Amino acid sequence: MPETTDVYLDFLCPYAWRGVELAAVLRAQGDAFRLRHYSLVEGNHAANQKGHTWSLADQPLDAPEGEGYMKHQTPSLRAFLAATAAARQGEDAAWAFTLALFRAHHEQKRPLDDAAIADAAREAGLDATRFGQDRQDEAALRQTLHAEQDAAREVGVFGTPTFVLPGGEAAYYRFEQLTRDPAVAREWWNLYRTVLQHGAGIGTIKRAKNRPAARVA
Amino acid sequence: MPETTDVYLDFLCPYAWRGVELAAVLRAQGDAFRLRHYSLVEGNHAANQKGHTWSLADQPLDAPEGEGYMKHQTPSLRAFLAATAAARQGEDAAWAFTLALFRAHHEQKRPLDDAAIADAAREAGLDATRFGQDRQDEAALRQTLHAEQDAAREVGVFGTPTFVLPGGEAAYYRFEQLTRDPAVAREWWNLYRTVLQHGAGIGTIKRAKNRPAARVA
Repeated sequence: MPETTDVYLDFLCPYAWRGVELAAVLRAQGDAFRLRHYSLVEGNHAANQKGHTWSLADQPLDAPEGEGYMKHQTPSLRAFLAATAAARQGEDAAWAFTLALFRAHHEQKRPLDDAAIADAAREAGLDATRFGQDRQDEAALRQTLHAEQDAAREVGVFGTPTFVLPGGEAAYYRFEQLTRDPAVAREWWNLYRTVLQHGAGIGTIKRAKNRPAARVA
Repeated sequence: MPETTDVYLDFLCPYAWRGVELAAVLRAQGDAFRLRHYSLVEGNHAANQKGHTWSLADQPLDAPEGEGYMKHQTPSLRAFLAATAAARQGEDAAWAFTLALFRAHHEQKRPLDDAAIADAAREAGLDATRFGQDRQDEAALRQTLHAEQDAAREVGVFGTPTFVLPGGEAAYYRFEQLTRDPAVAREWWNLYRTVLQHGAGIGTIKRAKNRPAARVA
């Protein structure tokens, strides 16, 4: 039984999407990854800059639309709760649903709404009746989301994707390209692990602001 | 003639110190590096958060000591101007002085004051008379510092050390360990370049806040 790497994701984030695609390819090769939710809206919320006071999991799903980044509040909450409900149908169901919803949002540019969620559930082969029932069990889903945010805060996650290796090393891994090629994914993952486990004690490699990495064409 | 890598440094910063030590080892093997000054006090100054309005190079050397991070203002300005004066005695002199002053501050824990600067000049084998005269040419030294801050802003430097490769790639490289071993330094440098030139288009690898890289014992 391989040791598990946690991958923290937010459906809002295209880097998290590419990170989860990478993890999915490695998972198909036998690596163990666990999907974990980390809310960027919560992490970046003004009320949380000096100590944690505001939780996404406590917000209503019919909140008025916010300004600026806060407009993502309700779509991201809806997506997290739906993915948590999907996970009740098993780990493979959770991965299939998560990938389908990520692709709907970032490849097909659809909003994170109930229609996209229903289509992702269908594409993932979920039992629709059960999924609908599980989505109604909102208090329990919110409790799970709360626990994940607590775990992320304990690690000090600040962005997505953040991978937490079995040895405890944890870092944000932001890359611009998408791969679903097994050999390429393995190489990208090995480089990340090499940096984290390197004898230099590397804390950060981060591009200068006006010299970004090459983006997807 | 090898192509030149710029290394942006601030004497205040222990990561810049280790970065310059690394570059010095590679330089001894024939790689070309150019020392460039980037002021963290200026970059982090509240007045510069929405457009650039405050320059370290414009500040007096007898400014009253600031609060918090701003207490580093005058020592860092003094160090930059002294290093710029030292560079008038040639590139090797600049490197020898820069390393000596970094070591005085971060290894010997001395403040960046005139005594440390004089000792670093002596250790670097500078012509003391000429160094004293060049330090008096303050307007020209400040002009050089201004130009370096402008160049750093153009690249989008935000921390030190930041290396700007001959191909234009530029990134902050923060590591906790010190090496002066040629083979080790080469390996650490190759890993950094691999990340910057990698096909994944890596923008950032950054540790989660509560899982830092292993520190120097």
